[in-house]
Amino acid sequence: MQRAAILLAAGLGTRMRSAMPKAMHPVAGRPMLNHLIASCEEVFDRIVVVTGPDMPALEKAAAPHATVVQRDRLGTGHAALQAAPALEGFEGDVAVLYADNPLIAAETLRRLLLARVSSDLALLAMRPADPGRYGRVVPHEDGGIAGVVEWKDATEEQRAITLCNVGVICAAAPRLFQWLRELKNDNAAGEYYLTDVVAAARAEGFRAVAVEAAEAECRGINSRMELAEAEAAVQAALRRRAMEGGATLTRPESVTFSFDTRIGQDVTIGPDVVFAPGVTIEDGVEIRAFSHLEACTVRHGAIIGPFARLRPGTEVGAGAHVGNFVELKAAVLGEGAKANHLSYIGDATVGARTNIGAGTITCNYDGYAKHKTSIGEGVFIGSNATLVAPVSLGDGAFVAAGSTITATVAPDAMAFGRARQEQKEGRAAAFRAARRKEK
Amino acid sequence: MQRAAILLAAGLGTRMRSAMPKAMHPVAGRPMLNHLIASCEEVFDRIVVVTGPDMPALEKAAAPHATVVQRDRLGTGHAALQAAPALEGFEGDVAVLYADNPLIAAETLRRLLLARVSSDLALLAMRPADPGRYGRVVPHEDGGIAGVVEWKDATEEQRAITLCNVGVICAAAPRLFQWLRELKNDNAAGEYYLTDVVAAARAEGFRAVAVEAAEAECRGINSRMELAEAEAAVQAALRRRAMEGGATLTRPESVTFSFDTRIGQDVTIGPDVVFAPGVTIEDGVEIRAFSHLEACTVRHGAIIGPFARLRPGTEVGAGAHVGNFVELKAAVLGEGAKANHLSYIGDATVGARTNIGAGTITCNYDGYAKHKTSIGEGVFIGSNATLVAPVSLGDGAFVAAGSTITATVAPDAMAFGRARQEQKEGRAAAFRAARRKEK
Amino acid sequence: MQRAAILLAAGLGTRMRSAMPKAMHPVAGRPMLNHLIASCEEVFDRIVVVTGPDMPALEKAAAPHATVVQRDRLGTGHAALQAAPALEGFEGDVAVLYADNPLIAAETLRRLLLARVSSDLALLAMRPADPGRYGRVVPHEDGGIAGVVEWKDATEEQRAITLCNVGVICAAAPRLFQWLRELKNDNAAGEYYLTDVVAAARAEGFRAVAVEAAEAECRGINSRMELAEAEAAVQAALRRRAMEGGATLTRPESVTFSFDTRIGQDVTIGPDVVFAPGVTIEDGVEIRAFSHLEACTVRHGAIIGPFARLRPGTEVGAGAHVGNFVELKAAVLGEGAKANHLSYIGDATVGARTNIGAGTITCNYDGYAKHKTSIGEGVFIGSNATLVAPVSLGDGAFVAAGSTITATVAPDAMAFGRARQEQKEGRAAAFRAARRKEK
Repeated sequence: MQRAAILLAAGLGTRMRSAMPKAMHPVAGRPMLNHLIASCEEVFDRIVVVTGPDMPALEKAAAPHATVVQRDRLGTGHAALQAAPALEGFEGDVAVLYADNPLIAAETLRRLLLARVSSDLALLAMRPADPGRYGRVVPHEDGGIAGVVEWKDATEEQRAITLCNVGVICAAAPRLFQWLRELKNDNAAGEYYLTDVVAAARAEGFRAVAVEAAEAECRGINSRMELAEAEAAVQAALRRRAMEGGATLTRPESVTFSFDTRIGQDVTIGPDVVFAPGVTIEDGVEIRAFSHLEACTVRHGAIIGPFARLRPGTEVGAGAHVGNFVELKAAVLGEGAKANHLSYIGDATVGARTNIGAGTITCNYDGYAKHKTSIGEGVFIGSNATLVAPVSLGDGAFVAAGSTITATVAPDAMAFGRARQEQKEGRAAAFRAARRKEK
Repeated sequence: MQRAAILLAAGLGTRMRSAMPKAMHPVAGRPMLNHLIASCEEVFDRIVVVTGPDMPALEKAAAPHATVVQRDRLGTGHAALQAAPALEGFEGDVAVLYADNPLIAAETLRRLLLARVSSDLALLAMRPADPGRYGRVVPHEDGGIAGVVEWKDATEEQRAITLCNVGVICAAAPRLFQWLRELKNDNAAGEYYLTDVVAAARAEGFRAVAVEAAEAECRGINSRMELAEAEAAVQAALRRRAMEGGATLTRPESVTFSFDTRIGQDVTIGPDVVFAPGVTIEDGVEIRAFSHLEACTVRHGAIIGPFARLRPGTEVGAGAHVGNFVELKAAVLGEGAKANHLSYIGDATVGARTNIGAGTITCNYDGYAKHKTSIGEGVFIGSNATLVAPVSLGDGAFVAAGSTITATVAPDAMAFGRARQEQKEGRAAAFRAARRKEK
Repeated sequence: MQRAAILLAAGLGTRMRSAMPKAMHPVAGRPMLNHLIASCEEVFDRIVVVTGPDMPALEKAAAPHATVVQRDRLGTGHAALQAAPALEGFEGDVAVLYADNPLIAAETLRRLLLARVSSDLALLAMRPADPGRYGRVVPHEDGGIAGVVEWKDATEEQRAITLCNVGVICAAAPRLFQWLRELKNDNAAGEYYLTDVVAAARAEGFRAVAVEAAEAECRGINSRMELAEAEAAVQAALRRRAMEGGATLTRPESVTFSFDTRIGQDVTIGPDVVFAPGVTIEDGVEIRAFSHLEACTVRHGAIIGPFARLRPGTEVGAGAHVGNFVELKAAVLGEGAKANHLSYIGDATVGARTNIGAGTITCNYDGYAKHKTSIGEGVFIGSNATLVAPVSLGDGAFVAAGSTITATVAPDAMAFGRARQEQKEGRAAAFRAARRKEK
């Protein structure tokens, strides 16, 4: 039996005070929507994302999954129903989820689907530390649930219920769409509420049950404060995972991971390190304080930072060193190569054991295109060198400090590109005397 | 009716272990005294600051408000009385506040003044989570207060009182100064205590009432630990305000704001960002990790960092980029201009769409004066360029990488200032052989 | 009477998931083992460290103290016994401690030794907030202790005991080694347990007592999570100490100290600062955000950062300034000298009042050896200068911006080492036209 998920992602995020659709706001470097899609992909065969009008970024983020647009904002029940044409003829179970509830685990979704098998409708619920004004899940005498009552409509007795509605629902597709079509909007807001299908199902004699999930998973994100809280919770889990895997985090709470950061064993991560998406750190690497890494690979035993920036496309070889105020972009550093001080190495390959002097800059951009710099093995680049790409330096070449290099340097050759030093005796003293007089 | 505030700021800060007057220690980038002055300026017509001898920094910080010096340290009552000559003839209400209680809100001061209207003396009080050894505010049978009893003098019954003395007092000026003049110093410390005026007022048949404020506002700062705690409380409020205004703070607790930081909507602030005073960030700006900004403006849609330093007088144009290890000082970057790597741009204007190459340095200082660099629109500055100010580059100019520029570059001209490259075949190999032999 | 300590440090750290011996993992910049050695050195005359096979790093860290190797892993009792030959003929008291319990204070060890005087055996114990599955210390009717019972062997009544075993034991050496030799390994793990000596002592009619220590001191470190928790606890204490000494920490929890960091009075430390071992900061220094210091001295009134890196061997003179993206390594900066922007100064002396321009690089390395740069007093180094060591600049010398300096500059001389500027009119416009056409 196939399974489908409908993800409601049309929210504007008014409380976020943002021009960006709510579901696009990132947690641990990935939009909320994609967190939910990732969990769903583990469990569901088909995914349909319901977006709002004019949300091209959402459609792109949802790809390759189908998207449908909810033109009018008539409530969650109405939103879910927009997916019906996309699931025409689909007879399996379908779950409806919310993009602003993005942290629900695949395992929880599996339990939801399992509960559906032994009943007609399964609803996700939680027991929050503070039930507050959440809708309450009213029990049914058959051991399942009778329905969901909003806090403002609940009796004192119902408010004492600790099981609260998360809103995620699962049922067989034909029935669910039938119930959705029959929903009424005779409430204060004039909206069609998805959770009203529980009562509808019960009214038709079907059985509904609740599946409990941890509060942390069911966290809704409706404001920047809640976004920060979700980020903190996800980061705490990512840090714990890195430490359990055998990494030392000197000050764990100061390290920012991305959802996909891969950290090896016996890796040491100093304070204040940021991992943007796409980073792989092999065993035995040391990442020192104030380093920023994105979409790069650091091979075993390399030392990065402090104050290093690794940008996308970078690969740092085994045992290589990247030091302070050094930026690498689409640069491949060979085994044991060193770029330790104040350098920009972009669109370049650097051979094994090559030493890049302090202040070296690869000039990879001419205002129109990016050009490549190729540096061989065992090369020595003197300090403050300027390498104008496209340019190539052979194995064992030596570039004198302060040189501008615009043409190929042969293997084992020394290249100079700097003026001869001249000295004017006493001129500094004279300059100072003149400047003092002016003042 | 006019209102005046007397701010007691003569404290030496012995427990701070500092040579700086206690009231000058900053919270969120502003001295304690100026926090209190800012609240008072919203409510009072006149402000008199009582300093100690030899505190010129305090007098400067208090300006344009009047300062009087308390020459002898004879207690808070004596300190407040020093303001009497400065308020000669003043008949309105006067409140006495403490510079080491700097977080009292203007709204609380308004409530204090309002309470004074319906009684003769109003005292600020709080109900701390842990009343500890605070002085207790003893109730009076008329619903007001009878006086303040120090913890060490209090009976068990009085110690059970949860309303504690903050020490801030408000009364009509002539009466207050009268009570202050009549204070006795027949106590263990031999000091004249301001809060003794409550009992004095009651003894003369006047009515005194308490005004309750939140403990957080009444926080006293007497040690570096308490200073750090106050800083943390103020920072938490500033972060919340930024998020409520529509900014994403990836790791809010790692962002340091100043009291006056202005953050627009849909601004993203990465981890580990510091805002010194005077920063305005417009809508849609992205401030990446490890950025440090002071007294600057960043226009809408610009991208700053990571590892960027914006110093006073800088203005980054709409959609402009300032990247890693780049320092801007008194620099105006035009719309869409880019300075992305390892540069120092000081005392400079940079036109729209101009690209500053990696390693570019403006030499604005000759040891005596600062000089200006003027760069036109659509200019391309090659990497590792040295621009010796005063110097001017016309629109559309192009500076070759590695050049030192000391003279005007015409619009659309290419400027070179670098030596021609030479190569010595095999010389690197020979050098290595020689060096190895030496070793 | 002499006193000896046996430190058990043979642990592999399996739960740390590390190839490094557990005792070598650092807390606040110092291996656990050395924390414990430092406490022990205050109290004990002799120290013997028990390591495992193939742990040369541990032996080095333990020096000059004796090490013995436990070849077979037969339990803590067996490990302690390995120290017997090294203490042959020693008749004083001996305490057995664990390298993964590294935070025990010297004062606690003194109390342990004192308790030994009035009994035959003293055992360290604690009352943790959550006794959990710790072994319980069973009281004896004589007011001492009867023994230690493991949680899994404890009766309900024993589990209700709140005094828990830390495992540290102290007794006269001849007796202790006797008891250790008589230990049995007839338990589930087949190991010889050190704490079984308590029962052994009691069985022979000796008296045993417990000495209580704070839970924080007794913290065991068995995983990266526990390592991070210990680090956090030690850091909190170091921060408190700095603040009590009169330093302002704007955001204390973001500052990382080392065990030996020395901070003067009226020092200000901004957010996100890292002190690696060996740093001394004198009075009145300001360390701004994002600075990283190691094995260096900063003299009174100097200003460091933001974004400064001070590496080993650096000494920053009184009132000197080290600014953003500046790296100093084995550099001595004279009084009032300035290196404020994007520079690398290594193996260098810089005279008083000398100004190092932005982008200055000392080329101290030629691929084989490090060479020295000597810069006099009152020197002005123009921006983007390249100083090729070994090289010397006399007092009052002036280096023009963009110069490469390879030879001595005389006092008061001006040195140039840069090409003359040339301009090609209209060439930039032509270049752009050509490039656009290509595209």
